[in-house]
Amino acid sequence: MSNFDEVVEICKRRGFFWPSFQIYGGSAGLYDYAPLGSILKENVYRIWMEEYMKIGAIAFDSPVITPEPVFKASGHIQRFADLATVCDQCKSSYKTESLLADKGVNIVPENEKEAVEILVKNKVRCPKCGNLLNNASKFNLMFQVSSNGIEKLYLRPETAQGIFTNFKLLLTYNRGKLPMIVIQRGKGFRNEISPRQAIIRQREFNMAEVEVFIDPLENPGFMPDAGEEIPLLRNNQEEYSGNLLNAYKTGVVGTSEHAYFMEITLKIALRLGIDKKKMRFRQHRKDELAHYSSDCWDLEFLLDSDWIEMVGISDRGQFDVKNHQELSGQNLNYGENEPRIPRVLEPAYGIDRMIMAILTSTYMKRESGYKVLSMPPEVSPYILAILPLQKKDGLSEKAQELFTAMRALEPRTLFDDSGSIGRRYSRQDEIGTPYCITVDYDTLSKDIVTIRERDSQKQIKDIPIKSLLVSGHFMENPILKLLNANSS
Amino acid sequence: MSNFDEVVEICKRRGFFWPSFQIYGGSAGLYDYAPLGSILKENVYRIWMEEYMKIGAIAFDSPVITPEPVFKASGHIQRFADLATVCDQCKSSYKTESLLADKGVNIVPENEKEAVEILVKNKVRCPKCGNLLNNASKFNLMFQVSSNGIEKLYLRPETAQGIFTNFKLLLTYNRGKLPMIVIQRGKGFRNEISPRQAIIRQREFNMAEVEVFIDPLENPGFMPDAGEEIPLLRNNQEEYSGNLLNAYKTGVVGTSEHAYFMEITLKIALRLGIDKKKMRFRQHRKDELAHYSSDCWDLEFLLDSDWIEMVGISDRGQFDVKNHQELSGQNLNYGENEPRIPRVLEPAYGIDRMIMAILTSTYMKRESGYKVLSMPPEVSPYILAILPLQKKDGLSEKAQELFTAMRALEPRTLFDDSGSIGRRYSRQDEIGTPYCITVDYDTLSKDIVTIRERDSQKQIKDIPIKSLLVSGHFMENPILKLLNANSS
Repeated sequence: MSNFDEVVEICKRRGFFWPSFQIYGGSAGLYDYAPLGSILKENVYRIWMEEYMKIGAIAFDSPVITPEPVFKASGHIQRFADLATVCDQCKSSYKTESLLADKGVNIVPENEKEAVEILVKNKVRCPKCGNLLNNASKFNLMFQVSSNGIEKLYLRPETAQGIFTNFKLLLTYNRGKLPMIVIQRGKGFRNEISPRQAIIRQREFNMAEVEVFIDPLENPGFMPDAGEEIPLLRNNQEEYSGNLLNAYKTGVVGTSEHAYFMEITLKIALRLGIDKKKMRFRQHRKDELAHYSSDCWDLEFLLDSDWIEMVGISDRGQFDVKNHQELSGQNLNYGENEPRIPRVLEPAYGIDRMIMAILTSTYMKRESGYKVLSMPPEVSPYILAILPLQKKDGLSEKAQELFTAMRALEPRTLFDDSGSIGRRYSRQDEIGTPYCITVDYDTLSKDIVTIRERDSQKQIKDIPIKSLLVSGHFMENPILKLLNANSS
Repeated sequence: MSNFDEVVEICKRRGFFWPSFQIYGGSAGLYDYAPLGSILKENVYRIWMEEYMKIGAIAFDSPVITPEPVFKASGHIQRFADLATVCDQCKSSYKTESLLADKGVNIVPENEKEAVEILVKNKVRCPKCGNLLNNASKFNLMFQVSSNGIEKLYLRPETAQGIFTNFKLLLTYNRGKLPMIVIQRGKGFRNEISPRQAIIRQREFNMAEVEVFIDPLENPGFMPDAGEEIPLLRNNQEEYSGNLLNAYKTGVVGTSEHAYFMEITLKIALRLGIDKKKMRFRQHRKDELAHYSSDCWDLEFLLDSDWIEMVGISDRGQFDVKNHQELSGQNLNYGENEPRIPRVLEPAYGIDRMIMAILTSTYMKRESGYKVLSMPPEVSPYILAILPLQKKDGLSEKAQELFTAMRALEPRTLFDDSGSIGRRYSRQDEIGTPYCITVDYDTLSKDIVTIRERDSQKQIKDIPIKSLLVSGHFMENPILKLLNANSS
């Protein structure tokens, strides 16, 4: 099994995620976040929001149901489409681009005619039945929603348009000042022709988007620090490795704000526990840029042997706000003396993919063969597990009592008294719980417990219970510092 | 203006919420959470989730797009419908039940025929053009979603079905044990005939649902404490006032688990700052129970002179799981020796309505006429504002410096240097910020500041900056205790 497959197996078995509606045979491209994944996802969103609020971002939340004029202006009605190829023998449908890529042809056909020519020329066959494929047609990727009136409604393919249509109200909220950073978490929808790879390519997915509105006449003053080094792959295929300040200074990244938000993105990915050795930034080729984008750098993650996009940091220029101004007839200019449309830089995060990157980054096997998810404590679903050494002699009851008290202080606390203590440690390791507290016979007589840390498997004995039952966050308890200094 | 209207005015002006897509004329029943409301909403969800995790709930997150068989089993395809009346003169459509209620007729007609009879008998007229109304037809409230295949898809009207369809997988996660408390936050959708009252009745709304799975053969052991007293209005119109333990003991509330989750709900509402004097529990009349419910208590809130539902705590019995078992043909039983279907108690929270209740509960006017939202600090969008006494003499720069340092510790921190200091205090009061730190000339010379508390308007001078710039949560800073003890 590949690393990816092993992690997906843990995720389904232990309850991070699984396919939705399985009792009815499932529904392609729809996944549930199970109990562990639901908390993990909240943790990822919380950290993302916190990092953006620290740099002055303001939050926003618009509906997923969106009326048609919004997507006329944004170009999604006309251009948010894939070419689809249907096998005329077995009726399977495919994204034409993927069929070509699987055949080693890395061309994105511009239209139906070109697509058919390339399919025929390369003798592309149906992966299911082997039939030769010879057709392609445009397929809009937005889901349409029924309404009772004349209004046409869609499910949004990105959260961005809810922000763009509110530019003027948000500017007023921000006291008329630019730059302005607006963040939005929420669902996005794509009627994928061929959903696949578990939560990597879904029809309904979790996004976190950032729209940075910038005055085109002024330098917004965003400048990266000389932070972590990271490989950058340019659209001329040149490779560069360095920090983002130098990437900007040497002209690899075109603007300081682009480099700044790439650095923020890298910082968030590292805080989430994503392996730096498996990340790179890659600049889009001209022929793969979205219709609204003039330049785009993706933060990519190496999943087994494939680089997948986690975050796209795109220069949308004045495209969206300008089109909304034209179609709505409303004044969406910035500035009174010299009215102008703001330009926009957009870091757009695929939360599901980041979660997959966290899980595969932190997955490891001990020499014993036991599996561990060594996620950062602030990311892992549960921080703490309370375990009795044995079930008998009142140890289970004592542990349950401590559990009830600890959970009132730290809700991300579990209890486990089934199987042997070794089994229980490895169960907690496998779901990423960083700390276990063991209740043993000394607990009964002396009110002391043992704490064990997940990655090092270090244990500290003789911790008084009263030093745990203190208000404030468990993660800030000084006891935890001992785990880095001592072992037993 | 009513209290509600005044609060809605603040919310639109200051940025809690506003109608969506206004540049295109808006779309009925769709609202944005603006920057302040977005953070407020996250705070409400966080507190709700924390309270449920403290009692051992497990989290879940299923898609909003849901295939048809799910809603066939749940009865929503057949029965989740309102009667609608269309004016044959001006073509306006109305929910028949609301037309009757506005006329003082509190009957929910069971079918089209009965509805038409009541409309005609009471000479109900179109509220817009005055035409006599004489028709009614069933109207399913689910939004349908287009798909490319034969699969029929809907937007979920409740998050509950995503949990019910996963009962067996969740039970395995929970090691086969009942009771099991499953929570889910997320969007719900209703194709409302007449959306109204700002965020109170929307077509897309924020829910937080809890499904408590209980073994029908065992007492699940949920028992309320003798907590806060609250009025209870029974479906026989008798009024009772007392705590929920007594309400159970005297038979006002039928089961101890129903009373227990009513108590949890009341506790959450109080922690959120909702006024106890404006709340009551009301039991559904038999004719208003949803098709899946055998008993339901709503936690209601008094909005001006109307009682509105915030939370419905419904006994769904074995309805849902049983129907899913029948339609899917899968075994959804609990227990091996004596297989049985679990029964379910469901506390379902309308997050938008709770937000409206928080805002109207905490809204007050000072004698000066200035408006205040006295929300609990953990609920209010921002905890802290840093204000220079004046803009000049380097005070603004010094305040900006402190702001940057504080925001790195507490992301919910604002900066404001426009207008007079009095104006700035009242601006913060109006958006509910509990603490303001003022930077004055003493700050320049002695690195000390003044802290002001919102509700009491108390100020404490001479606070050393270094006592603020400490790690850990600002809300736990001992300095804040002084505000309750001293004033200046």
